[in-house]
Amino acid sequence: MLGIDPGLTRCGYAVLEGRSVNSVRAVSMGVLRTSSSDPLPSRLAELRCEFTSLIGDFTPDVVAVEQVFFQVNVRTAMGTAQASGLAMAEGALAGCEVIQYTPNQVKDAVAGWGGADKEQMQKVVQARLKLATLPRPADAADAAAVALTHLAMSPVGRELRQAASS
Amino acid sequence: MLGIDPGLTRCGYAVLEGRSVNSVRAVSMGVLRTSSSDPLPSRLAELRCEFTSLIGDFTPDVVAVEQVFFQVNVRTAMGTAQASGLAMAEGALAGCEVIQYTPNQVKDAVAGWGGADKEQMQKVVQARLKLATLPRPADAADAAAVALTHLAMSPVGRELRQAASS
Repeated sequence: MLGIDPGLTRCGYAVLEGRSVNSVRAVSMGVLRTSSSDPLPSRLAELRCEFTSLIGDFTPDVVAVEQVFFQVNVRTAMGTAQASGLAMAEGALAGCEVIQYTPNQVKDAVAGWGGADKEQMQKVVQARLKLATLPRPADAADAAAVALTHLAMSPVGRELRQAASS
Repeated sequence: MLGIDPGLTRCGYAVLEGRSVNSVRAVSMGVLRTSSSDPLPSRLAELRCEFTSLIGDFTPDVVAVEQVFFQVNVRTAMGTAQASGLAMAEGALAGCEVIQYTPNQVKDAVAGWGGADKEQMQKVVQARLKLATLPRPADAADAAAVALTHLAMSPVGRELRQAASS
């Protein structure tokens, strides 16, 4: 799975491997950055290439993208929307299943409640992925949370959780 | 030049050839459509491929894209923003100069005033491109207007207009 926390200046990504929330490991996590002093088309082109490389290198079955809402921050929402569009297009073109999750779905599925703050999310991600330290930067942790959400919410994830609790 | 009036359901495009607003011809004009019943990632992937084909087939020097504003229509602005992002990324990746023009810049540069309505714009585009009939659909005419704006506002366009008026 590839999780994406979309952004133009900072775009978090996390490649996770595993079939359930209890047996999942981080293969690669990080942040794609583009410089705010570069022209917008170059920044979008850069991100597009990075998405193509990530998907080509790790060949995920699923690309999970955090859904963008205009309400949150109108100033940055445009770039964030465009970054998420590029990720979804590249994922679909590569034959991946591409799914968006809302920020609340991510918090709810990963931390157990929709009101979790950034630090709580980082701690849950650290525990789930059995990381020695808090996952940093926060954007990478957010991307991992989006991928974990897919694991928790997808039919396979649900089946596994049902099997584990029965 | 390739002009783009971005949209997810209907995306206008116009390929124009020429060095000045007085000697320009339409090479290809039309509308890329994606079905609103398809999943968003597939629609974005489809558009991405169409942009890649358009740019590959016509090898424009310039891709001119109408700028998206959130204020206009929040319901469709997200898809429109994502479509414009895909066009800008593909244009920049192909080495084109990519420029955005605001709706008011387009109306002002092509019709002479920012308050021109859709039909007036179609008539001006028809006259500029010496078309036998009104350019339809409107999205294709809008895309042609964006490309004409570049011709009118770019340094080459300005030089030619200055030379013509001196």
